[in-house]
Amino acid sequence: MAPIKVHGVPLSSATQRVLATLYEKELEFELVPVDMKAGEHKKEPFLSLNPFGQIPAFEDGDLKLFESRAITKYIAHQYADKGTDLACGDTKQKATIGVAIEVEAHQFNPAASKLTWELTWKPVYGMVTDKAVVEENEAKLAKVLDIYEGRLAHSKYLTCDCFTLADLHHLPTIQCLLGTEAKKLFDSRPHVSAWAANITARPAWCKVLALEKH
Amino acid sequence: MAPIKVHGVPLSSATQRVLATLYEKELEFELVPVDMKAGEHKKEPFLSLNPFGQIPAFEDGDLKLFESRAITKYIAHQYADKGTDLACGDTKQKATIGVAIEVEAHQFNPAASKLTWELTWKPVYGMVTDKAVVEENEAKLAKVLDIYEGRLAHSKYLTCDCFTLADLHHLPTIQCLLGTEAKKLFDSRPHVSAWAANITARPAWCKVLALEKH
Ligand SMILES: N[C@@H](CCC(=O)N[C@@H](CS)C(=O)NCC(=O)O)C(=O)O
Ligand SMILES: N[C@@H](CCC(=O)N[C@@H](CS)C(=O)NCC(=O)O)C(=O)O
Repeated sequence: MAPIKVHGVPLSSATQRVLATLYEKELEFELVPVDMKAGEHKKEPFLSLNPFGQIPAFEDGDLKLFESRAITKYIAHQYADKGTDLACGDTKQKATIGVAIEVEAHQFNPAASKLTWELTWKPVYGMVTDKAVVEENEAKLAKVLDIYEGRLAHSKYLTCDCFTLADLHHLPTIQCLLGTEAKKLFDSRPHVSAWAANITARPAWCKVLALEKH
Repeated sequence: MAPIKVHGVPLSSATQRVLATLYEKELEFELVPVDMKAGEHKKEPFLSLNPFGQIPAFEDGDLKLFESRAITKYIAHQYADKGTDLACGDTKQKATIGVAIEVEAHQFNPAASKLTWELTWKPVYGMVTDKAVVEENEAKLAKVLDIYEGRLAHSKYLTCDCFTLADLHHLPTIQCLLGTEAKKLFDSRPHVSAWAANITARPAWCKVLALEKH
């Protein structure tokens, strides 16, 4: 039995962030499905894993964690010598990766996740996309991607020439946005577009996407 | 000349997060004021420190960082042996602190910062508080504080009996909310209320508040 368990579903962006990290690290794990339609994530025993009632939740032996970005950081640190080195460099380089990780969480994700909700998920649930929200968040995301475009002119990845957690954390939302009209925001920025193509083609990420098909 | 520089203003919550960390660590630093009314944060040379045009920005010798939570983590790690140990424990305890840090960023702060905007800053700028937004975010914050109340019944601080970065990151927003009608959300929860009183009384935090008065 694998000591690592991920409680979640393959279509959840936060779950995907953790799964991508585990595949990059070539770690064995068990994906424990959560029946969200039945509200399993809002009841015990799930609430003992995450009192906020959100997926993913994570177990490594007796250690229980939640919040996708806390889980990925733990995996990258605890299994530093396995698979891809996702936190390369010395203390100063790690601090720079830390900045890019916070930028994803506080600048990129707020706009990007509102767009995935409006453009992908609302249609799935038969709800109507709010065009004003789309416009506002496309403008916000465009500003973030302009800054990324400047960075990516100097290095292959967001912080240096290695793929790190900072790049990885963007994968679920970028994959989703590339299937929507917001793709134009990527297409119009050559370095951002090459970076997005590069990271979404990683074998570890393809394994995450393959899970959706099961 | 101090090698550490913080570019920001003492009234900014994100700047306060960094200042509190520096005082806890008993580090020398220079606070370089940014004239936000003149839009200094949206022009060079500030944009070379933070392309997103937000305060704080941070320098330690030739290392330049931004995003308050990335800066505090760097300081806690780089100056681990100075002042208060803000990341106590082994890898597993650090992972648990990591979860609480993400909870502040993704569960507590979104609701709390909308409330400080509506209840404190809008009145300062002569704008009208939106009661529906207040109600919605008080309800969201109440749910988060219910979970905190459960935790704080078992330990003095959010993750254990030591004060860590996870507690510290809450200080600016809690200080602000305690001066608004949202104080009731704290008062009605005895453990949350004792925790808030305890952390806002820390000498390092009082030094941050004293800066506002200069
Ligand atoms: N900040 C959390 C967000 C987790 C999250 O939003 N999970 C979604 C699925 S992607 C969920 O559980 N939604 C159900 C709900 O919030 O009730 C993380 O990064 O883990
Ligand atoms: N996520 C950023 C937020 C920084 C932030 O919002 N700073 C505010 C002052 S507290 C600011 O510069 N506002 C001006 C603006 O956004 O244009 C951090 O934690 O450093």
